[in-house]
Amino acid sequence: MNKQNFTTSLKCFVCQKEYPPEHIYVCPTCGLQGILDVQYDYDRIKATLTSDIIASRQFNQWRFREFLPVSFTAPLPNLHVGWTPVYNVERLAQAVGVRQLYLKDDGRNPTNSFKDRASAVGVMKAVEFGFDTVAAASTGNAASSLAGLAASMGLRSYIFVPQRAPQPKVTQLLIFGATVLRVKGSYENAFDMCWEACENFGWYNRSSGTNPYLVEGKKTGGHEIAEQFTGAGALNGGKLPDWLVVSIGDGCTIGGIGKGLQEMKLAGLIPESPRLLGVQAEGAKPILEAYYSGNDLVPSETNTIADSIAVGTPRNWRRAIQQVKLSNGEMVAVSDDEILDAMRKTARLGGVFGEPAGVTGVAGIKKAVEKGIIKSNETVLTVITGNGLKDIQTAMTAAGKEIEIEPDLRSLENVISKQLQTDV
Amino acid sequence: MNKQNFTTSLKCFVCQKEYPPEHIYVCPTCGLQGILDVQYDYDRIKATLTSDIIASRQFNQWRFREFLPVSFTAPLPNLHVGWTPVYNVERLAQAVGVRQLYLKDDGRNPTNSFKDRASAVGVMKAVEFGFDTVAAASTGNAASSLAGLAASMGLRSYIFVPQRAPQPKVTQLLIFGATVLRVKGSYENAFDMCWEACENFGWYNRSSGTNPYLVEGKKTGGHEIAEQFTGAGALNGGKLPDWLVVSIGDGCTIGGIGKGLQEMKLAGLIPESPRLLGVQAEGAKPILEAYYSGNDLVPSETNTIADSIAVGTPRNWRRAIQQVKLSNGEMVAVSDDEILDAMRKTARLGGVFGEPAGVTGVAGIKKAVEKGIIKSNETVLTVITGNGLKDIQTAMTAAGKEIEIEPDLRSLENVISKQLQTDV
Repeated sequence: MNKQNFTTSLKCFVCQKEYPPEHIYVCPTCGLQGILDVQYDYDRIKATLTSDIIASRQFNQWRFREFLPVSFTAPLPNLHVGWTPVYNVERLAQAVGVRQLYLKDDGRNPTNSFKDRASAVGVMKAVEFGFDTVAAASTGNAASSLAGLAASMGLRSYIFVPQRAPQPKVTQLLIFGATVLRVKGSYENAFDMCWEACENFGWYNRSSGTNPYLVEGKKTGGHEIAEQFTGAGALNGGKLPDWLVVSIGDGCTIGGIGKGLQEMKLAGLIPESPRLLGVQAEGAKPILEAYYSGNDLVPSETNTIADSIAVGTPRNWRRAIQQVKLSNGEMVAVSDDEILDAMRKTARLGGVFGEPAGVTGVAGIKKAVEKGIIKSNETVLTVITGNGLKDIQTAMTAAGKEIEIEPDLRSLENVISKQLQTDV
Repeated sequence: MNKQNFTTSLKCFVCQKEYPPEHIYVCPTCGLQGILDVQYDYDRIKATLTSDIIASRQFNQWRFREFLPVSFTAPLPNLHVGWTPVYNVERLAQAVGVRQLYLKDDGRNPTNSFKDRASAVGVMKAVEFGFDTVAAASTGNAASSLAGLAASMGLRSYIFVPQRAPQPKVTQLLIFGATVLRVKGSYENAFDMCWEACENFGWYNRSSGTNPYLVEGKKTGGHEIAEQFTGAGALNGGKLPDWLVVSIGDGCTIGGIGKGLQEMKLAGLIPESPRLLGVQAEGAKPILEAYYSGNDLVPSETNTIADSIAVGTPRNWRRAIQQVKLSNGEMVAVSDDEILDAMRKTARLGGVFGEPAGVTGVAGIKKAVEKGIIKSNETVLTVITGNGLKDIQTAMTAAGKEIEIEPDLRSLENVISKQLQTDV
């Protein structure tokens, strides 16, 4: 057992073998398939941790430190990660057909996505293991989040992006000072290059799929939900929602949030986890297919506007399915049109501008209500995992158009009277 | 006096005449020049408000409600505005040449800018005065913030944008359901149309320059700074920074923050306000010129990348100069190159990605140190007023370029060895 925290081992999802909680990526026996899951001494946590102790701490993701694999004697990143707001959105609840709907806006994190929770733990582990450089293959939120957190800690970062990576996403990496390497090839080429480079140059690999510690940061989303609904000044009269809805790409986010909620239950801090509804895009749903078939995951092509969950070879699919099943949950898939509709509705009726993958949960709720999975008298929470400013191109597709007018009142009056007719 | 809050009157900045704190935009005598300033019964506030009372409240901008002109019996917007994090950024302090530097990241607000503080008060006043529709002329943060807050409150919004308004900025308005009217003409045409339309159709005009209540929301930036540096768990050993640095466009932001700090002093909650350093862009500095000449403001052309402070006819210039002088402050101007440099440095050394106007304060600190205004042994705070994702085009200019590599290790090794040579 680690003396600086409550971790006990790293356990392989495939062969169940356990390893000491040290610097290791995947199971030496099972290779890249052998994702490792950090184990903790929950009895010892339960014996010492109370809701009062948690309540006395600062409102950020280190609030639930007993469940995190980092040493709290080391300096923490100074960026404020976590403790994102939860909103009760009545008009949006009506629109998707449930009694009550809450949005947790994780676009409010420092680099504007849920991934900051993972990267914050990642940079802590990098420093603990003696690395001065971190790396990742991605153009998405994981990369920008790593670049931002690395900058705040004074670590050097290398990001490998595929040839087709859009310039605006590359810009967020460059502004944080990351060295961005555009690999002439596919995402898989970039992923392989990153892995090789980390081996060769002694860098710390941030990939959530292969790095066992990253997903641990994502658990704090679950810890917070537990406290926000049952702690002091709790939402929903102190009662957890019936359903927690999370979009799924690689499987790390729902896997992490689900584990966080299970931990709060193990520590005796909540009676039961909400049921998890996992939502994939129709154009990228290999985990949903594995969930229904009961077989091992079959990689698929991807075709969806929700780039942050467009994952054809998800590495953490076992974790995602495990958590959905543990919570007596379900899975659904939604189309790109349903995602675009959810972007508009979430902004207009909820006041939150989410990126496509960020509002996929909202689309999933509507779908689950139609399928009779979620009942109209149930209470639902979904996590908006990224800010809409991250992908303004897709937002332009969803948002509609402005109206041109001449600079005179008559021209405006014509617009208004047409609009009023349409309203009726 | 208003029974629902501590306001006493609206006082004209030009003729000093006072009016009841009701629905009125500018001084009936002085017209658009006659900006009205909300007055409060500070003696009554001082007699009742203590730091313990403040400490017992939720961490959002309604925490300092005694200083706000809204009725707290009405429903508040559910978006979480304010109480943005402050970071101690040692490497950035070194780079700009001061002993200690703090960044307050107001890009963490719901629509990612400081303007949410004003819009939240604006929609509260709209509802209080019986309006169901709000309007603004702008393509910037004020407009997106109004659209987001209006959406969250179920209000209809109309935004007037000039012909040249960039599509990505218009998108953020449209996604929130605003009716966006692209006026064939200049910003002044759009401003006039908005004013006329509000008169004609009975809409509430959000413009901070002409609406006396909006700037009151901005004061909460000042209130928070006071508490974050002197309240429980205070930064900087409980001592306010020597300097507070704010970029200036219209004058509302520095005017609001400055007033908030003066109020905390009036209420006996802090001993003294930090000195304010107002920073304008070289290409848009009419307030700086009025400050140094002592004459009335002369409108100017504007030419700067910092679009959020590119204001040639600032309406709240008297308020800005008043607050700078009250605090024994100063003003400087910075070039676009200095702003681009500050974008890079703030992201790379501070971990915060700000838009150009958001990091203009950082550039101003460096300039003020060079001019001997700020001493190298002083402590400085600046407010990052907007998130860099708001203007990814300019960020692309600042960020530099990625490096193309073939998908093999040799190609990467060449890059790394060149980089190491450059480092040396």
